[in-house]
Amino acid sequence: MRQTSEIGVGLLGLGVVGSGVARMLAEKSAQISRLTGGPVVLKQALVRDPSKQRDFQPPQEIVTSRAEDVLDSPGIDIIVEVMGGQNPALDLILRAVSLGKHVVTANKEVMARHGLDILDGANKAGIHVRFEASVGGGIPVIGPLMRDLLANDVTGIHAIINGTTNYILTEMSRSGADFDDALRDAQRLGYAEADPADDIEGTDAAYKLTILSTLAFQARFKESDVYREGITRLTARDFLYARELGYAVKLMALARKVDGCVQLRVHPALVPTSAAMARVDGVFNAVQIETDLAGPILLHGRGAGSYPTASAVLADVLHIAQSIRGGVGPQETFSLSDNIRVTPMSELETMYYLRLNVADRSGVFARIATILGQLDISIASVIQKGVDRKAAEVVLMTHRAREESMQEAIRRLEALDVVHEFGNMIRVEELEN
Amino acid sequence: MRQTSEIGVGLLGLGVVGSGVARMLAEKSAQISRLTGGPVVLKQALVRDPSKQRDFQPPQEIVTSRAEDVLDSPGIDIIVEVMGGQNPALDLILRAVSLGKHVVTANKEVMARHGLDILDGANKAGIHVRFEASVGGGIPVIGPLMRDLLANDVTGIHAIINGTTNYILTEMSRSGADFDDALRDAQRLGYAEADPADDIEGTDAAYKLTILSTLAFQARFKESDVYREGITRLTARDFLYARELGYAVKLMALARKVDGCVQLRVHPALVPTSAAMARVDGVFNAVQIETDLAGPILLHGRGAGSYPTASAVLADVLHIAQSIRGGVGPQETFSLSDNIRVTPMSELETMYYLRLNVADRSGVFARIATILGQLDISIASVIQKGVDRKAAEVVLMTHRAREESMQEAIRRLEALDVVHEFGNMIRVEELEN
Repeated sequence: MRQTSEIGVGLLGLGVVGSGVARMLAEKSAQISRLTGGPVVLKQALVRDPSKQRDFQPPQEIVTSRAEDVLDSPGIDIIVEVMGGQNPALDLILRAVSLGKHVVTANKEVMARHGLDILDGANKAGIHVRFEASVGGGIPVIGPLMRDLLANDVTGIHAIINGTTNYILTEMSRSGADFDDALRDAQRLGYAEADPADDIEGTDAAYKLTILSTLAFQARFKESDVYREGITRLTARDFLYARELGYAVKLMALARKVDGCVQLRVHPALVPTSAAMARVDGVFNAVQIETDLAGPILLHGRGAGSYPTASAVLADVLHIAQSIRGGVGPQETFSLSDNIRVTPMSELETMYYLRLNVADRSGVFARIATILGQLDISIASVIQKGVDRKAAEVVLMTHRAREESMQEAIRRLEALDVVHEFGNMIRVEELEN
Repeated sequence: MRQTSEIGVGLLGLGVVGSGVARMLAEKSAQISRLTGGPVVLKQALVRDPSKQRDFQPPQEIVTSRAEDVLDSPGIDIIVEVMGGQNPALDLILRAVSLGKHVVTANKEVMARHGLDILDGANKAGIHVRFEASVGGGIPVIGPLMRDLLANDVTGIHAIINGTTNYILTEMSRSGADFDDALRDAQRLGYAEADPADDIEGTDAAYKLTILSTLAFQARFKESDVYREGITRLTARDFLYARELGYAVKLMALARKVDGCVQLRVHPALVPTSAAMARVDGVFNAVQIETDLAGPILLHGRGAGSYPTASAVLADVLHIAQSIRGGVGPQETFSLSDNIRVTPMSELETMYYLRLNVADRSGVFARIATILGQLDISIASVIQKGVDRKAAEVVLMTHRAREESMQEAIRRLEALDVVHEFGNMIRVEELEN
């Protein structure tokens, strides 16, 4: 047991998050030393191009492009992986674990796809793998789920866990912009990447929901278990109609457990403007965890960015450093139940918003209503607006209906000659608060 | 190291929270066993009157009125204190620690007054004392502060951490009731105790703020460091005027750190209706933690009640059980800085709401304005309403002013012959979101 000797950190990646971690290890060294009982020092940082100028520049001699310099250094106890993406991050994490190094990672893709195997390996190697930064940036989410709410049965998760899309949707709502313009603005301001596909198609949120659901329901979920729909079909008009009906439009990540079956889905949703989720704006994230004992727990804060993510990474580093100095205790135990089924999306029952561009003549609405009626979909409210002399836009809100029926309804409506264009279908989530 | 043998729990108290803990240890025994690697069993419960019928009745042979039966039982590893109040809880906790038993407590009074000494003793004895349930009921708050946000410098805490008063204030706002009526309703519904003094005078919230501030600022605070003002002076009219001005009225617990000085206060405050805190309603609690790296973190949920509090107690029990089975690691380290000063209330600078009942004749407002002007208090807005032919009610909102000056202004205003009654002064908090 080492009491006060130096604990070495090896960084894999020195981008936005890595720079924040490196800077804070340096700037907060006195405080970190006080909290953990001795110095915690950055020893090596792996980068692609060591000559590149960076936001935070560690001493040149500890910057390397060779992974072995970090992984094999005997002075390094904790490997911090902040490269993102599956490769080579996964391979480096697995090598670190096999070398008996503790690992802290912010990598949602790796943890969603291989997290349970990595944690298994960590338990066998007697080291810790921690990943608070993989979901919700600076918001404590993994910790509360794995520890503070451990006595609860989680019945649901409602979350906004992608800052890029939430920023875009907030701007669309505020300015009336269409999706393409809002995306370009977000890219210009650095809130969206040059290749925004993972964010706007809901993949990033699906990785995070996979991680949260695995912890919440203590079952092995794959990211392919998550139904996924992005925000690219949303138009300025959808926001106008939604507001008229009393709703905001959000990219929701939803998990619900009913009778041992879990629904996992990421898609745009209409949420009542009175719900807390409707007021999560800009790059903020929020995770609401529904529990049997504690009731609904809402966690809200900055879901991305250099320092918020560094906050979560450093918490994990400090926790491991405390453990090293105090004698490494066990990783939080984890036991998975096998008998949880993922509900197919076709079995979903919810309310729906439909927007259609139709011929503006008598009998059209009757034909739409007939199709819906045949499929047991009942209409809750209708907005109809003239577009020009020949066309009208019809917006329908339905009562609860089956997804399977709704998909069939959409097929039949699209086939109608009087439907010029099927505008959009957005699910409606009546969140509790 | 014991792997799978039974871990014994001794309960001190079998009231609302204790019953919830006992019931859940029984009902969730399979799940708890799975999570901790073996059974965790209630072995003894201390009560005042063993013959009393209870909401949840453990087997009669494990209910006792003798503390020794719990403390001295060799089969008990974890003492759970849920009696509340200083005596005899403090003594029993100290005895448990000295006997080398782990302790879980929900006791805010004991932890606010003696927490640091108890934790010191725990470290020396090599056992854990955990107290997540002492603040915020089922909301993870202590855990996030001690672990997840550890790398941050906390700059402020804004919290609603007393469910009783928040219920009363929410009802006053909704129904237009005056304080006495709202209190009676709350008592009838079980949301306020027969003797509500600790809640309505802000003492309970001050204990909780002491605990949060000690953890957040890592300094030794006493509950007497917290300026404290209750909700008993609030009237239905204050709520009306507040709403007219765009504010809600909440009992806020506030801690702010500026230049190494910390302000600690619990008092009613006007908060903008757009702020998240304005929408924390009924028995819900919310804690917003302002940090340097993670930004503002908001934690929201049920702040009291049998099951929410049991959720927090059980999380601590499970964590300790995991540690016992895995080999007890160290208690989270804790190191206090000595050079933090508590700012005297007189140095506060904020905005103020003033309500006065004045003579309805010319020149009155000029005399009020003159007094405020002499003390460098500038007026931001005024509402004046006739009460009868002789009297008017004047409501003033000021710009930022010094508390010292405001207190002097109140003394001078009360001495004016044209001021029939000084109605109320409420501080205004322009929370960020």
